[in-house]
Amino acid sequence: MSLPKKELFDIPADVIYLDGNSLGPLPKGASTRAGEVIEKEWGRELIRAWNTADWIALPKRVGDRIARLIGAPEGSVATGDTLSIKVYQALAAAFKMRPERRVILSDRGNFPTDLYMAQGLMSTVDKGYELRTPAPEDVMDHISEDVAAVMLTHVDYRSGRLHDMKEVTERAHAVGAVMIWDLAHSAGAVPLDLSGSKAEFAVGCTYKYLNGGPGAPAFIYARPDLIESVEPALAGWMGHEAPFAMEPDYRPAMSTERLRVGTPPVVQLSILDAALDAWNDVDMSDIRKASLDLSECFIAEVERRCPVLKLASPREGELRGSQVSFAFEHGYAAMQALIDRGVIGDFRAPDIMRFGFTPLYLDEEDVIAAAKILEKVIAGELWRDPKYQTKSRVT
Amino acid sequence: MSLPKKELFDIPADVIYLDGNSLGPLPKGASTRAGEVIEKEWGRELIRAWNTADWIALPKRVGDRIARLIGAPEGSVATGDTLSIKVYQALAAAFKMRPERRVILSDRGNFPTDLYMAQGLMSTVDKGYELRTPAPEDVMDHISEDVAAVMLTHVDYRSGRLHDMKEVTERAHAVGAVMIWDLAHSAGAVPLDLSGSKAEFAVGCTYKYLNGGPGAPAFIYARPDLIESVEPALAGWMGHEAPFAMEPDYRPAMSTERLRVGTPPVVQLSILDAALDAWNDVDMSDIRKASLDLSECFIAEVERRCPVLKLASPREGELRGSQVSFAFEHGYAAMQALIDRGVIGDFRAPDIMRFGFTPLYLDEEDVIAAAKILEKVIAGELWRDPKYQTKSRVT
Repeated sequence: MSLPKKELFDIPADVIYLDGNSLGPLPKGASTRAGEVIEKEWGRELIRAWNTADWIALPKRVGDRIARLIGAPEGSVATGDTLSIKVYQALAAAFKMRPERRVILSDRGNFPTDLYMAQGLMSTVDKGYELRTPAPEDVMDHISEDVAAVMLTHVDYRSGRLHDMKEVTERAHAVGAVMIWDLAHSAGAVPLDLSGSKAEFAVGCTYKYLNGGPGAPAFIYARPDLIESVEPALAGWMGHEAPFAMEPDYRPAMSTERLRVGTPPVVQLSILDAALDAWNDVDMSDIRKASLDLSECFIAEVERRCPVLKLASPREGELRGSQVSFAFEHGYAAMQALIDRGVIGDFRAPDIMRFGFTPLYLDEEDVIAAAKILEKVIAGELWRDPKYQTKSRVT
Repeated sequence: MSLPKKELFDIPADVIYLDGNSLGPLPKGASTRAGEVIEKEWGRELIRAWNTADWIALPKRVGDRIARLIGAPEGSVATGDTLSIKVYQALAAAFKMRPERRVILSDRGNFPTDLYMAQGLMSTVDKGYELRTPAPEDVMDHISEDVAAVMLTHVDYRSGRLHDMKEVTERAHAVGAVMIWDLAHSAGAVPLDLSGSKAEFAVGCTYKYLNGGPGAPAFIYARPDLIESVEPALAGWMGHEAPFAMEPDYRPAMSTERLRVGTPPVVQLSILDAALDAWNDVDMSDIRKASLDLSECFIAEVERRCPVLKLASPREGELRGSQVSFAFEHGYAAMQALIDRGVIGDFRAPDIMRFGFTPLYLDEEDVIAAAKILEKVIAGELWRDPKYQTKSRVT
């Protein structure tokens, strides 16, 4: 394998794309595959395609391909729904596994939807649960014996800071808590050894580093030895042991499939399936090395060219995921000005300019070119242009 | 408007499609739209498309188009997720609205996933809830003062039998219960007056009569006057009043949008959006009249040609949705033999042969031709061929 594999992606010539950590670009094969699924499978086969195109097994096939990238065994990953839904499933299952405990431990760097879903579940269950959110660097000190579940996003979406998966999981297990990892910014970005971590659950999305497209389905992992004791809160027919027997009572599948819920989004799952082709011969350790090289190059260039930007990510590569963030008071306007000049990163409130490094389709030349354009925007104060001050609905 | 509008659909020439009640066929515009979204919006605009292609408002735009077809006002329908998830949301909200009650009333004709989701929620909440499922025709007698929520599928998926929406809702309200309608087999099939019924919630899917494609997103309606008091169990960031403010605490949107959960499936929502174009100039009462004509023609033809098949749907049109079912001991094999000859219906355990009538793309000629082929299969006992005896994974 050699990186990058730019030829597999359809990226506009006038764009340097540093936002693969938010929405990965279009893999060329994905578009073709979508056309086939829509016109041939749906159009020609109609309802028969559930059998003839094996749509029914598609979620599992895709789950197995993701499993390989996150250090999980075949059959341990279910796909579908959104990441928010998968967070809910994992957390509700954890509540059942630790019925006597009433604390969820997360951190205040966690992505808001994870915290919101926890709040929604707590309110639904209505048994006095508490959500604790210390600062990310203080999490280890808060893993105490009253914690039912430790729920953390492995790579902080703002700073890119990495939690130590093995160390945190061990600490959680030492106090008898269930461990849930959100891999939104990890899958396809950093090597993972989920099996080795012994975490009970992991969840993630596929529209970032896995390039599955806008609103691509999410995934959930459950440790194989405990899947038969997981009680699904979202007990949908596709998680039933015999969906088409139309039994009156829920009877969960004797596999990870019990974490499926409703009818799978066949078109988007197929696009994701095609997107995963780019990973066929990829070793995550090669991706990691290249991503650190690109990130370090970018940090050095930006610090030299734009001293007003303050690094908001850990400086040491091993403490960072595959993104680099800089804090800048006028970050929102600066990012708009930068995007206007073809360098696409994104902004996260209150002041974070975020840049993702994705070695599948980026090389050092891109990174240096991006830093030069950023320098123009910052040194020339191009962000002061009034057109960059009005916030769009999605920032 | 004149029916049918076959020219809008891409149906194979050798197929008579009587399974639009399971998966609608491909609308020609859907395929083009998918290509545009994938290649232009995702491919060219990348992350910017959330603003430039207004992906962020897509769920609401599509919801408003569905609202018109189900007799609901603009702004009252949220889209996304699967029908199973939407059932859970409605039911969990109903629990909060009737905290002192512990009974869910459904019927044993309800689609299994609705019952399963109720069971999953009951187990998650773990406060002694009970799910009662009398026979569909006995539901009215079971709506008692201990019922928190009446949750029914308007058109029975097996028999096609219709509940009287207005009458059942009135009875539910008379005893203080919350009413939840599943419109899976109603939306796009029968005229609906959701507003007039005063039901609190309705949910539905879009891959049947609305032709949104395999795994198309679901929808949920909440009665506008109570939306601000609905407590979302699935408190995802897309239902937050300010998703991009990244606030630590959940604060529900002051609109139906609070029933959104995670990142919307943009590609499948766009396909659905294009599919809804077929409904632009359609009056549901014209659809209903045409569907009853087609159904009655089919019943008459089948009873004359295949006396061994027993009508399993109500004989009177006004008691039936847009499907007709026949019971036949060898229904599974007979349906396979029929499909092999280009007439596509489906089978539902234990012995139901199901046929959907969709006036958007079917006319009387199709229906008579289908009945003739069915006669050949039944009279000639073609279903005895061993190849039709082995059940496929999806039946």
